Amino acid sequence: MTDAEDVHDKNDGRRCGGKATQPMFASESFLFMFAGFMPATAAHAPTVVIENFYPCIEGGRHPIKRIVGEPLQLWCDIFTDGHVVMSAVLKWRQLGTRRWYESRMTPTDNDRWQGLCQFDSIGRWEYTVEAWADTFRGWKKTFAVRVQAADPDVPIEALEGARLLKEAALRARPGAADAASQLEEVAELLEKLPPQEVMEVLLSEDLQKLMDAYADRSLSTTSEPLKVIVERERARFSAWYEFFPRGAEGRADKHSTFRDCLPRLDDAKAMGFDTIYFPPIHPIGITARKGKNNTLIADENDVGSPWAIGGPAGGHRAVEPALGTIEDFVWLVKEANHRGLEIAMDFAINCSPDHPYVKDHPEWFYQRPDGSIRYAENPPKKYQDIYPLNFHCADWKNLWKELIDVVLFWVDKGVKVFRVDNPHTKPVSFWEELISTVQRKHPEVIFLAEAFTKPKMMQVLGKVGFTQSYTYFTWREDKWSLTDYAKELTQGEMRWFYRGNFWPNTPDIHPYYLQNAPASIFRLRAALAATLSSTWGMYAGYEICENEPLPGKEEYLDSEKFQLRQRDYDAPGNIKGFIARLNSIRRDNPAMHLYDNLVFHGADHDQMMCYSKCTPDFSNRMLCVVSLNGHDMVSGMVHLDLAALGLSSDQPYRVRDLMHGTVYIWQGSHNYVSLHPTGTSLHVFKVEPQ
Amino acid sequence: MTDAEDVHDKNDGRRCGGKATQPMFASESFLFMFAGFMPATAAHAPTVVIENFYPCIEGGRHPIKRIVGEPLQLWCDIFTDGHVVMSAVLKWRQLGTRRWYESRMTPTDNDRWQGLCQFDSIGRWEYTVEAWADTFRGWKKTFAVRVQAADPDVPIEALEGARLLKEAALRARPGAADAASQLEEVAELLEKLPPQEVMEVLLSEDLQKLMDAYADRSLSTTSEPLKVIVERERARFSAWYEFFPRGAEGRADKHSTFRDCLPRLDDAKAMGFDTIYFPPIHPIGITARKGKNNTLIADENDVGSPWAIGGPAGGHRAVEPALGTIEDFVWLVKEANHRGLEIAMDFAINCSPDHPYVKDHPEWFYQRPDGSIRYAENPPKKYQDIYPLNFHCADWKNLWKELIDVVLFWVDKGVKVFRVDNPHTKPVSFWEELISTVQRKHPEVIFLAEAFTKPKMMQVLGKVGFTQSYTYFTWREDKWSLTDYAKELTQGEMRWFYRGNFWPNTPDIHPYYLQNAPASIFRLRAALAATLSSTWGMYAGYEICENEPLPGKEEYLDSEKFQLRQRDYDAPGNIKGFIARLNSIRRDNPAMHLYDNLVFHGADHDQMMCYSKCTPDFSNRMLCVVSLNGHDMVSGMVHLDLAALGLSSDQPYRVRDLMHGTVYIWQGSHNYVSLHPTGTSLHVFKVEPQ
Repeated sequence: MTDAEDVHDKNDGRRCGGKATQPMFASESFLFMFAGFMPATAAHAPTVVIENFYPCIEGGRHPIKRIVGEPLQLWCDIFTDGHVVMSAVLKWRQLGTRRWYESRMTPTDNDRWQGLCQFDSIGRWEYTVEAWADTFRGWKKTFAVRVQAADPDVPIEALEGARLLKEAALRARPGAADAASQLEEVAELLEKLPPQEVMEVLLSEDLQKLMDAYADRSLSTTSEPLKVIVERERARFSAWYEFFPRGAEGRADKHSTFRDCLPRLDDAKAMGFDTIYFPPIHPIGITARKGKNNTLIADENDVGSPWAIGGPAGGHRAVEPALGTIEDFVWLVKEANHRGLEIAMDFAINCSPDHPYVKDHPEWFYQRPDGSIRYAENPPKKYQDIYPLNFHCADWKNLWKELIDVVLFWVDKGVKVFRVDNPHTKPVSFWEELISTVQRKHPEVIFLAEAFTKPKMMQVLGKVGFTQSYTYFTWREDKWSLTDYAKELTQGEMRWFYRGNFWPNTPDIHPYYLQNAPASIFRLRAALAATLSSTWGMYAGYEICENEPLPGKEEYLDSEKFQLRQRDYDAPGNIKGFIARLNSIRRDNPAMHLYDNLVFHGADHDQMMCYSKCTPDFSNRMLCVVSLNGHDMVSGMVHLDLAALGLSSDQPYRVRDLMHGTVYIWQGSHNYVSLHPTGTSLHVFKVEPQ
Repeated sequence: MTDAEDVHDKNDGRRCGGKATQPMFASESFLFMFAGFMPATAAHAPTVVIENFYPCIEGGRHPIKRIVGEPLQLWCDIFTDGHVVMSAVLKWRQLGTRRWYESRMTPTDNDRWQGLCQFDSIGRWEYTVEAWADTFRGWKKTFAVRVQAADPDVPIEALEGARLLKEAALRARPGAADAASQLEEVAELLEKLPPQEVMEVLLSEDLQKLMDAYADRSLSTTSEPLKVIVERERARFSAWYEFFPRGAEGRADKHSTFRDCLPRLDDAKAMGFDTIYFPPIHPIGITARKGKNNTLIADENDVGSPWAIGGPAGGHRAVEPALGTIEDFVWLVKEANHRGLEIAMDFAINCSPDHPYVKDHPEWFYQRPDGSIRYAENPPKKYQDIYPLNFHCADWKNLWKELIDVVLFWVDKGVKVFRVDNPHTKPVSFWEELISTVQRKHPEVIFLAEAFTKPKMMQVLGKVGFTQSYTYFTWREDKWSLTDYAKELTQGEMRWFYRGNFWPNTPDIHPYYLQNAPASIFRLRAALAATLSSTWGMYAGYEICENEPLPGKEEYLDSEKFQLRQRDYDAPGNIKGFIARLNSIRRDNPAMHLYDNLVFHGADHDQMMCYSKCTPDFSNRMLCVVSLNGHDMVSGMVHLDLAALGLSSDQPYRVRDLMHGTVYIWQGSHNYVSLHPTGTSLHVFKVEPQ
């Protein structure tokens, strides 16, 4: 890889933002409406076809995602007319900068080429492919054949080669006089000596490198740039812990404040979490406030749902007075940061009837024929405590700007992670705008989409920029649906734009299989979430296996969403040690930091899953064997894909269970595993060759 | 389907070329760089996601191809935020016109929608999808629920519905006063009567049709248009016969002229061909002219290769004097047309050293260091009789223009079909330019690409506009490679842009399996070509089973490419009757006119192929069973996919062999077939339910 600007800036202005030239036929034919390979600034007709890029989301209309420093391998078809030798480079640069980096691409088979790059800082980047008929390489190849065949044209062809060398020397001269002189020397040799005596220097690697650096790209073709969002490591690798700050102390009789949250932070850190997610902290509406267990009538002591935002104390830029002040919150954010934790804020675009927007901007809401503001409905159900905003009202530009400013307001207060509530009920284009605007100024900001909806919408939210997304994991129970779904997320096209954050529970979802379930089920679901994906999270209460449902519903009884709740975070039977162990294994093993390296292996038992994650260089290899049965023992053979683990079948290897400390020596694919819900219910093996 | 312009032109100028409005954030964020669903002229933010089109070639950068009147079924994902009722229409228009046609799309599953259209004249078209949240449909749906549930909000919601109806009436008023009045009447009913009494008219189909015609599309989203090349029937269905006009009489002692060609035309017509393809008819070079069998030394009687174009009598705009004059050629074209035949001209961009371009435009060629012009080479092989043009020379624009003008010159003389020689050795962008320029003026012109090269190049030539293309059929011999290849061409993405013209032989290719082969092999290869593809061709001599090779080469001995050749077109053992029968069956059966309707059926014997072609409505069903063995009998069971034939397993059906006149009554999938090389070597069945 070389820095292209250093080499080429002086060489050919066209490649570094030279003036656009009108294509010849633009006004008189369909060519440039149809052509895919005609860059708008080309001064000559396209010479090379560059197409069929992989990865490429919707023909390049959406960016792919990478983590800073993470390699990107790219493929595309490159070919031209006739029988010429091609050269191609992959070029990349940060959006808004002029500096292109580049690396040479290599042909694989049938005109398919491959390139490799990586991005050294976070932000938005673009990459493109430049390809050209390499006249020097082509000349060299045929010249060798001619010399071999004693072609009578050898002398004149030697002059042709000398000409190519001299032209390269001219391109090199302004910035690299030494290189120019070297090239001229070889040209003179070619003109003067018998060709046999020049072949060695002609065929040398050094000469080719020089000629590559000053290649004649005047007739090159450059593809339309594709976009990449490059993010920090935590965009891919994170462990989330959600709690209601008002319940930080676990007291039904006292509303906790931001200042009361430190012990909860410390506890979460001890469990190995790095991201602390708070439900909305803004003032809660009073009009039509919901009572306990989502009842329609609240008494005066009811605290209300944090998602009904806006009250006398303000809206999205204020905090609920019962939690403290903005200063208290900023203090807590800093305390969290000192502990290596980040606080994720809930961005929920809901307005209670008491939200300041209702009075100040009634035009941002839907009006009914009687002039009243329309509340949320799913007829015949009514949600009088929430007024939806009209994102396409006449004043939409100001509405959008205000909402984006709200996010920027909190970014200024130190918040770098946002969990976005129900993004699928707001325009996709709004999120694209919001995320790109925020990340342009603050590329470190992370957005998690809480869109539990149909697949296409969930996917497009990832495409337009959401860093992470909730998934259907919460409802995938059996081996086959878990396997299929994890493959879809991590092995198909979705891995380029969608990072699934696996949650066994949320305040909204108390899945049926966790209702009144034993600790063993809580352990196995946490283990699956933490090992299948590089990013996972859980909602407080999970660690003490809270399992009482609202009867007949997928919800918690006496949910914290609507009331203060008594809770002993250290209750007997808690699984905090288990979770701490899981998170510490994740942290210590780089293979667990990666998202798209998941490989499934065979396991005979229908309630046993076996899968691995390795670093690309196999310096870290993790193998998980998990029982899906929370009640009975599960035993059987597992059948490992040794190649996927970088192992050979004729050598023994050591598997060290990092959860339990046991070590086995295995050899070959087929090995016996026995798991028990109250003992070793899973293995998280570190695999090492003997 | 309705004519959108009639309905909407008065309604909303934006949809019919209204003024472009600058997107709000264009200069200050990445949104509109990244967004895929933001049309440049949108006045509001995109409301709907429309993506993942099928068919779609390279993200829409290349057009698909259709035949005039042929239906196009299109799929895409359409969805928006929230829980709203969507409407979507497929819209299409001829490029350069304002008139949009449209038809309503229907949702299938998981946000996938389907639309149908067809194009009623040849030329270039575009189509797009417009989708919107359908407020009236959505209101109607929830209103019915409210009425059912006796929602206290029914009266106010009735007013909301009346408002929607009145707004539609306003849109209707200017062009359709009656419709407006009808809508206003319903609005008044809603305002005055109890809702139960209005439900019938509200839910009526008539009202919905009116509301669809005047729907509120002010917040609709329109996708980026995709392109279609719409061509005449012969672009898909044709039978080509190639002969050298100088050999029209089959005399080694006499150079035939255009005026001598009529008997050959009549013979070709009798065999059922519709397109007569002549190798280049231009003056042949003298300098370095090739002798018989491609030898380097020609004597003065050697006629030379027609592909070495350009001599004292002129270049690409002239005809070889030995063939006659341009007037003779025009006369022949007209004679052919009177017979329902078209003459295809060879467009071969080769220049002999005697071509006028060499003297008039030496700058269009490659110069060697000694100032001489570079001839074609594949070192150490030299082709001194041909000078390649430099398509990227400094004067490329004039060179391209001249070559395009050459084609237009011959179009003016009546030529509507061009077989293009070696297009893969000229820039792809040149062909895109040439074809679009010619077809813009003459959309009826057909271009056949003779690119026997690597797959990606062959495909891209189809993508940029070649109507038909030569294929690897010529080298596919066994059942599995024929089946796989025919599937790749007709069932995969290639069918949208690539029409494979199947040739068992050409003047350049005398395949090994035809060398010294019996007539049975000639019959089976012709049958495969004529029935697997809707477009096929053969080179003269095939009908008399000419089979002598140049030893060790895939070429003909004493090839017509380099000499006049004695030939009795009615020689004993000819297969003209067989070919005439094949072509007549093709012509009489509409299923054979289609390209992408090929379905393969099981056949136990490895040398027996079984496949069918049906019209979509099953009004014509053709079933072929072909033996690949030219020497021995082949027998065995075939296993029909009855659903693909529109047959049920419980009813007998009749299969009538149109080659031999025999009729069988079959029932079910499994039937016995026996084929013999000298008897019934194939069946071309017409299938009819009993």
